[in-house]
Amino acid sequence: MIEDLVDRLRLLRTPGIGPVTFRQLLRRFGTAAAALDAVPDLALRGGGKAPIIRSRAEAEREIARVEKLGARFLALGQGLYPRLLAELEDAPPLLIARGQAGLLDRQAVAIVGARNASAAACRFARGLAYDLGRHDVVVVSGLARGIDSAAHDGALEGGTIGVIAGGIDIFYPPENQARQEALFERGLVLAEMPPGTEPRARHFPYRNRIIAGLSAGTVVVEAAPRSGSLITARLAAEAGREVMAVPGSPLDPRAQGCNQLIRDGATLVQNAADVLEAVQEPTSRVRATADAYCVAESDGGEAMGLVADLLGPSPVPVDEIIRLSGAPSGAVQMALLELDLAGRLDRHAGGKVSLRAA
Amino acid sequence: MIEDLVDRLRLLRTPGIGPVTFRQLLRRFGTAAAALDAVPDLALRGGGKAPIIRSRAEAEREIARVEKLGARFLALGQGLYPRLLAELEDAPPLLIARGQAGLLDRQAVAIVGARNASAAACRFARGLAYDLGRHDVVVVSGLARGIDSAAHDGALEGGTIGVIAGGIDIFYPPENQARQEALFERGLVLAEMPPGTEPRARHFPYRNRIIAGLSAGTVVVEAAPRSGSLITARLAAEAGREVMAVPGSPLDPRAQGCNQLIRDGATLVQNAADVLEAVQEPTSRVRATADAYCVAESDGGEAMGLVADLLGPSPVPVDEIIRLSGAPSGAVQMALLELDLAGRLDRHAGGKVSLRAA
Repeated sequence: MIEDLVDRLRLLRTPGIGPVTFRQLLRRFGTAAAALDAVPDLALRGGGKAPIIRSRAEAEREIARVEKLGARFLALGQGLYPRLLAELEDAPPLLIARGQAGLLDRQAVAIVGARNASAAACRFARGLAYDLGRHDVVVVSGLARGIDSAAHDGALEGGTIGVIAGGIDIFYPPENQARQEALFERGLVLAEMPPGTEPRARHFPYRNRIIAGLSAGTVVVEAAPRSGSLITARLAAEAGREVMAVPGSPLDPRAQGCNQLIRDGATLVQNAADVLEAVQEPTSRVRATADAYCVAESDGGEAMGLVADLLGPSPVPVDEIIRLSGAPSGAVQMALLELDLAGRLDRHAGGKVSLRAA
Repeated sequence: MIEDLVDRLRLLRTPGIGPVTFRQLLRRFGTAAAALDAVPDLALRGGGKAPIIRSRAEAEREIARVEKLGARFLALGQGLYPRLLAELEDAPPLLIARGQAGLLDRQAVAIVGARNASAAACRFARGLAYDLGRHDVVVVSGLARGIDSAAHDGALEGGTIGVIAGGIDIFYPPENQARQEALFERGLVLAEMPPGTEPRARHFPYRNRIIAGLSAGTVVVEAAPRSGSLITARLAAEAGREVMAVPGSPLDPRAQGCNQLIRDGATLVQNAADVLEAVQEPTSRVRATADAYCVAESDGGEAMGLVADLLGPSPVPVDEIIRLSGAPSGAVQMALLELDLAGRLDRHAGGKVSLRAA
């Protein structure tokens, strides 16, 4: 078990192996150990150099550090790893968790919104989070200023999960240290990045996919147009989850993002009852995850030439590559995996891929 | 022409003849004169007493009074009578109009809302009405306090129609006299009731159906749950028109009606562009009105027994009576008309009918 974790961590921390590639390697080779053995050859067959695989010693050091921080790893497809999050094709292969991991077993709803929200909206978010907690719903948010903080505060009793963009031991923004520590104690904090990682702009969309992925639905409270909260809402919609928004007067600029979401089809919610009604409808696109680690039957050699020819700098859906190549799906996936490990492939949202500029 | 108006007015002002009955009599007999001749016999065949038909002298006195007030009659299916309003099965057979009747030729949108609206909502309604006017859209409202008044004020330049519940010469609420007089001058005022009628509670839903019926869509700005504005919205939806609502914070009780409308499927609108976008979509349920006065071919005698047996105190759709009776549609309609004139039928919303308790 611990050996498997070491192997998974070595694989995941190897440069160029992201969540999608990781998942496909596990699907193909069954275990992280087998994938580690195969990666150098795959990269060579994809026409690149073998990546420098993270050493066993480094992985063991990270594991020891996480344990020392009072945290633990959760591995995709194992143990307490949350079922809804596992549905994402780019689900984090490993999460670092500190706090009450049992919260991952309960139905969760995300509450997100503006950092500079109005006092009234923060009060609303806090009340909504509290009311959801009274109905056994765990509230997920991002431990940011404004709406996120209010949501965690309201849900502290009922159960709340904070997903952070940096390492589990980093407090950002700094004034949220006491809040994050309260969640270590009474709630749960999740981080995808290794300990010590300072959050950067590019980390926040990754964090947002975890917030959306953990939750049966996402409620947006006060969000400016083109804000991170709307990205979370979009990711929730893409994952087939319920998108909800709290309306506001058109005279209030901070209401524009939410009102636009509602115009675009989000469910207008005014209270916890509305939220519960929305998320209790059966989720339409729950995917089976049993196949997460089934072993593919073919390798990419047979399809490599075809696939490489079909790819260009413009992202195209993998499904289309499979269709145009006429090759078996498994063989195409394998060829893409080899190109990926060779550093020749870029993966895009919506399952699209393109050839990386040389 | 004037003779026809006298006959129509005599028929309409005869007790027990409402808009639906009026329309069916015209369909059956082609002219109001022929319908007047037929009414006594029809009532007897329906098993009741002949109604007391309004005298020619009384009708002529009303016409003279309307003219003296500077107003005019508009008759359903004739001249300037608005095309969209004529689509309603219970369209007013006659309207009394004072002002710029040419406004009836332009696309119209209703703006309605709370009498005790917030200052912010009134400002919003005034601005929205002004902006719609700049896009050649006429704004229809009810000349009430609050949102209605703000909408008329904003649209006075662009074009506005006030529909009132009482007679054309009655100012209600009294403080709106100057506003109504401004509409006589620069806009248009419509009344269904005879001059001198003081508006009563039961008149307002009738007034609301005219507001909804004149308009391609209805915008609700701040409305309490179970308020008259929501009735107008429902009537608009039943007529196949666009229902739009301006959202507000869930913390504001005055926003609840509108937010609920949006939850129920109304389009969230934040500005004139949103309204224009909504009403420019082709109206889905525009009914042909060419048949408004086509003459039915059968009388009700053959179907009377069947129809009377099928009716009870619970409202049932006319379509269902036709289907269950197996009789031709025209014969069933005729039997219903006879029962109606005999005072034995009640007509309900949604084309339902029931037998009146004896």
